[in-house]
Amino acid sequence: MKLFKIGGNIIDNEEQLKEFLLHFSKTQGPKILVHGGGKLASQLSERLGIEPKMVDGRRITDAATLDVVTMVYAGLINKKIVAILQSLFCNAIGMSGADANIIRAHKRPVGAVDYGYAGDVDKVDAGILLNLCEKGITPVICAITHDNKGQLLNTNADTIATEISIACSGMESTELIFCFEKDGVLDAEDKVINNLSHSYFNELVQQGVITDGMLPKLNNAFRALQSGTKNIRIVGPGYIEHPEQEHTLISN
Amino acid sequence: MKLFKIGGNIIDNEEQLKEFLLHFSKTQGPKILVHGGGKLASQLSERLGIEPKMVDGRRITDAATLDVVTMVYAGLINKKIVAILQSLFCNAIGMSGADANIIRAHKRPVGAVDYGYAGDVDKVDAGILLNLCEKGITPVICAITHDNKGQLLNTNADTIATEISIACSGMESTELIFCFEKDGVLDAEDKVINNLSHSYFNELVQQGVITDGMLPKLNNAFRALQSGTKNIRIVGPGYIEHPEQEHTLISN
Repeated sequence: MKLFKIGGNIIDNEEQLKEFLLHFSKTQGPKILVHGGGKLASQLSERLGIEPKMVDGRRITDAATLDVVTMVYAGLINKKIVAILQSLFCNAIGMSGADANIIRAHKRPVGAVDYGYAGDVDKVDAGILLNLCEKGITPVICAITHDNKGQLLNTNADTIATEISIACSGMESTELIFCFEKDGVLDAEDKVINNLSHSYFNELVQQGVITDGMLPKLNNAFRALQSGTKNIRIVGPGYIEHPEQEHTLISN
Repeated sequence: MKLFKIGGNIIDNEEQLKEFLLHFSKTQGPKILVHGGGKLASQLSERLGIEPKMVDGRRITDAATLDVVTMVYAGLINKKIVAILQSLFCNAIGMSGADANIIRAHKRPVGAVDYGYAGDVDKVDAGILLNLCEKGITPVICAITHDNKGQLLNTNADTIATEISIACSGMESTELIFCFEKDGVLDAEDKVINNLSHSYFNELVQQGVITDGMLPKLNNAFRALQSGTKNIRIVGPGYIEHPEQEHTLISN
């Protein structure tokens, strides 16, 4: 099974999103798409006078912000993607973690930071996802989970992709592909690293070459690798059309 | 199969919504829930400075309004309902018409009124809905459809419930229950009509007793009856807990 994760760089640009989805729809075999929300959630927040609050690249989700991300991720973006995929003869089904109870989470305990209605994943139901794939239906999953007690929760999309990948790997050979704005992880000379081992990753972190937003993504990637995901790739927007193009393969 | 449709009177009041969903979750056998959007879409429109425009109780859906209803119906309300049902051990799955291609529609042709991105239903895939029900999964369907060419469309929730009912009736005995603010259709003395035949309905329309918002609902109800739906009921908020209470049964 191939599991793609797309973020703001693709979602925020309608033409680029359509281009990505065209090639995604042509990808053979079982596949799942996980998407983030890009800038649209912050834009809607601002229009509604709700100031977006971020700590270390993670959104602080108060009740009003939870409504905004639920509207933008599970409503606007998710349904737009599903409608485009349907027009490309890809029978997509949009889901949050609450739908068919596919992703259960718990509210992150308040520590040094109170992240509000942020969810840490407890369990992914890989069975129902792979079952849909088997029937030729493609799950399109947004970054909203629930706690099984009636509360929706905002969850990082990279983390959701990782957790789905780990859960599916227990049942089926799984490939996890993080699509982002660059063509892969870059070294100190801004060249794409074709093969990123955990020791080289640690080296680059110590040297300050890998920082900020890449850190959680790559920590997720190595966690997926250690938990049985067959291949994990960090790729650029063009990879889905040209999988032979340079990108980063995560390795032990 | 039992098909419930709820509207603003239940959705706009969180306590009433939870009360309804508690009894809905306990309803035995296969079931589907169709929901409208209540006042929330209009409220969000106003907060965003988009003036809601209505003609004969139907929303004019320009591009900005389509984004609003997609966010509110398919995002906020749909996922809130699904999360509450999951907490009540009802394995719900939220869907728009685009998801798994369950409801295809076309943009309403421009006539005396240009309704914008309003969709008239072409086809409902009853097979997949009844298949989900058989597996113990409960579809929760919002009033957003698509045209199979990548365009989402806003569709009246009563009409969606009616079309689903007609499609499912071809495969399985179906009961359609419209839940609204009164305990049923009222006669000239404001008493609930227990049995509303088509001839009595016509009489009440001519007398001006049935007007406005009730007209499309009842036209839908008689259309469902003529197309094979076994029972159609117009009921109040308390009916789901006490089905023995007075309500209106639609009859030939």
